[in-house]
Amino acid sequence: MVAIFGLLTDFGERDPYRGQLASVLLRRCPSCQLIDLSHRVDPHNILQGAFFLRASWPYLPEGCVVVAVVDPGVGGSRDIVLLRSGEGYVLAPDNGLLELMFRHARLDGLWRLSTERYPWRSATFHGRDVFAPLAADLVTCRNPDGLGTRLSVRDMVRLQYGEAEFEGDYLVVHVLHVDRFGNCVLNIPEDSREKELLESGGAKMMEPESVFVPAVAAYCDIPAGRPGLLPGSQGYLELATDRESCAELLGLGNGDRCLFCLP
Amino acid sequence: MVAIFGLLTDFGERDPYRGQLASVLLRRCPSCQLIDLSHRVDPHNILQGAFFLRASWPYLPEGCVVVAVVDPGVGGSRDIVLLRSGEGYVLAPDNGLLELMFRHARLDGLWRLSTERYPWRSATFHGRDVFAPLAADLVTCRNPDGLGTRLSVRDMVRLQYGEAEFEGDYLVVHVLHVDRFGNCVLNIPEDSREKELLESGGAKMMEPESVFVPAVAAYCDIPAGRPGLLPGSQGYLELATDRESCAELLGLGNGDRCLFCLP
Amino acid sequence: MVAIFGLLTDFGERDPYRGQLASVLLRRCPSCQLIDLSHRVDPHNILQGAFFLRASWPYLPEGCVVVAVVDPGVGGSRDIVLLRSGEGYVLAPDNGLLELMFRHARLDGLWRLSTERYPWRSATFHGRDVFAPLAADLVTCRNPDGLGTRLSVRDMVRLQYGEAEFEGDYLVVHVLHVDRFGNCVLNIPEDSREKELLESGGAKMMEPESVFVPAVAAYCDIPAGRPGLLPGSQGYLELATDRESCAELLGLGNGDRCLFCLP
Repeated sequence: MVAIFGLLTDFGERDPYRGQLASVLLRRCPSCQLIDLSHRVDPHNILQGAFFLRASWPYLPEGCVVVAVVDPGVGGSRDIVLLRSGEGYVLAPDNGLLELMFRHARLDGLWRLSTERYPWRSATFHGRDVFAPLAADLVTCRNPDGLGTRLSVRDMVRLQYGEAEFEGDYLVVHVLHVDRFGNCVLNIPEDSREKELLESGGAKMMEPESVFVPAVAAYCDIPAGRPGLLPGSQGYLELATDRESCAELLGLGNGDRCLFCLP
Repeated sequence: MVAIFGLLTDFGERDPYRGQLASVLLRRCPSCQLIDLSHRVDPHNILQGAFFLRASWPYLPEGCVVVAVVDPGVGGSRDIVLLRSGEGYVLAPDNGLLELMFRHARLDGLWRLSTERYPWRSATFHGRDVFAPLAADLVTCRNPDGLGTRLSVRDMVRLQYGEAEFEGDYLVVHVLHVDRFGNCVLNIPEDSREKELLESGGAKMMEPESVFVPAVAAYCDIPAGRPGLLPGSQGYLELATDRESCAELLGLGNGDRCLFCLP
Repeated sequence: MVAIFGLLTDFGERDPYRGQLASVLLRRCPSCQLIDLSHRVDPHNILQGAFFLRASWPYLPEGCVVVAVVDPGVGGSRDIVLLRSGEGYVLAPDNGLLELMFRHARLDGLWRLSTERYPWRSATFHGRDVFAPLAADLVTCRNPDGLGTRLSVRDMVRLQYGEAEFEGDYLVVHVLHVDRFGNCVLNIPEDSREKELLESGGAKMMEPESVFVPAVAAYCDIPAGRPGLLPGSQGYLELATDRESCAELLGLGNGDRCLFCLP
């Protein structure tokens, strides 16, 4: 069986950090496959990393081990944890990066990993010096109980992050992520409240602009130069404009608030 | 035989879209090789994608299947087509992305692909949900006739794009692409008119500046701080400056016009 | 044995240059592994490339062949050279890109490579047309003496680059590289003078600001909003701030000077 690692970090692509992490994996597993989910999580942006991870999880090959490193507390006392979901694993710092996996993915095991076997570790680059060898150990032994001790979600650091909320007739929403095309991913998971918006055919937006936003199925169904609501490809409702940046049209950025008035 | 996929998209590298597309390919073909041609085609810039594809085609390994997704019409009525050239294939939306392949590559087959077998597809991310499984089907079966129906180039959407044109003693040229080094790739294919410029030793540029532009073989043959004309590495004539950005020197960007007076 | 190539260039990720180089390697070695160290060396910045190479070298898998192309003199008279260190190799232009390997890595052989066998080469893209086939030849034959003639370091182009220097009670330092997080890598290798700074507990910085800079082990040990000195992960001392950009805090960029007053 081919070992497959998924990589998700805030290292960027200019510095040789991703290459060094990959080098350590390839030293140990010369025939592995590497899938770069993203290395452009904004520096230290744990919520964005959590979103990229949760959005990508359903597509990863069976048995994939994701090495997720958005780790502002590197070198301090934060733990390194391992989550199992189905046949797949994620290795991450215990800082909230797994938050959306806890909420939306099947949870088949959780471990705090022992890092004492890596005494040569730097204090500033555990991705290369601790996470990568731990991930290689895992695909070699496939026995997480040999790598650490079992935890429950109650023992984990949780991320303060709210999904969309109703306030009277209003729905208060935040932009979870603006993508390259200016599509605004909203904090409304596809299996929840968006049905109310979508099934009712749309909603009146009150903020940032006063405009009716129709619910559509595809970008091309959105009237030119206007925003529309549609089920996105990342597991959340999206606010989009056809062939233009909706973020620019409405002046929206990551974390910004939108207000809808429900019919 | 190792399955090799080439990837060419406008997804960028920050969002996890390329990673999700790669994940679907690796689920189906765990031992495949992936070659990223570029994921930084400007959003929806079909001509730039067409150029990157045509420029890279001669170097791809035999039997490579390129998944080319610059697809502003995703979710609408545009078709997905498959082009065969030699032993290689390109899968692309029928929106002009194959234009420079039609003009410059050997054409050994063209199919409109049936997408009905992918009913679970999102309406916004066919790269992951339709193109990737189609590409995996193709390398598994190697029988395009089983995936769709034959087309001819006459049935395809063509890109309005003109190559350099003579107007009297003048040659009207456009910048096809400015690369990272500021080299300006011109819309003059290497097998055509540039010989007139190169064999005559250069030409007087009239726009954007009035300056004689010598024809040279290598960057180091260009006089310091001046523009020169040379056969580029991407199949087109290039306007360049030695160790400096010619685009900055002349104030040129993608699509800008240059005028040469022929000797 | 799996052939493993490391890639280090200033090609960027937008243009299809890295993809074309990879294509040529995969034509010749369809089962190889590719490790991208970086393609975002600043255009023509040989010192930055030299730093990325030296910093990454200890982590590369045994027997890896690095193709290092930061090559402003492409098409001119500069040589292409091959360096062996342990079981690994680097192929590079003879322009100083190997400087930090000469200073800090074990040196087990040096060759000037014959390029006459590649008469089809472009004059502007030797990475794809000469370096890549040479690298493939090397992993195929593993006999560098068959590819060129032996050199000594004395025959090589050297990079004018100084490490930190004492001037009386002062230590004059330069910023070798600012990374994505704003950490400032200083030109003080980990096996040399930094011990004086680190073992003394820190130093008074005189330029660019007058502030005591404590020596710490990890980012979290740095007082909030202040700079600290620590052993970095790249083989050099770093100036950093906890969860903030030290480069922004102190207004530092690549090549800038810092002055410390030793206790």
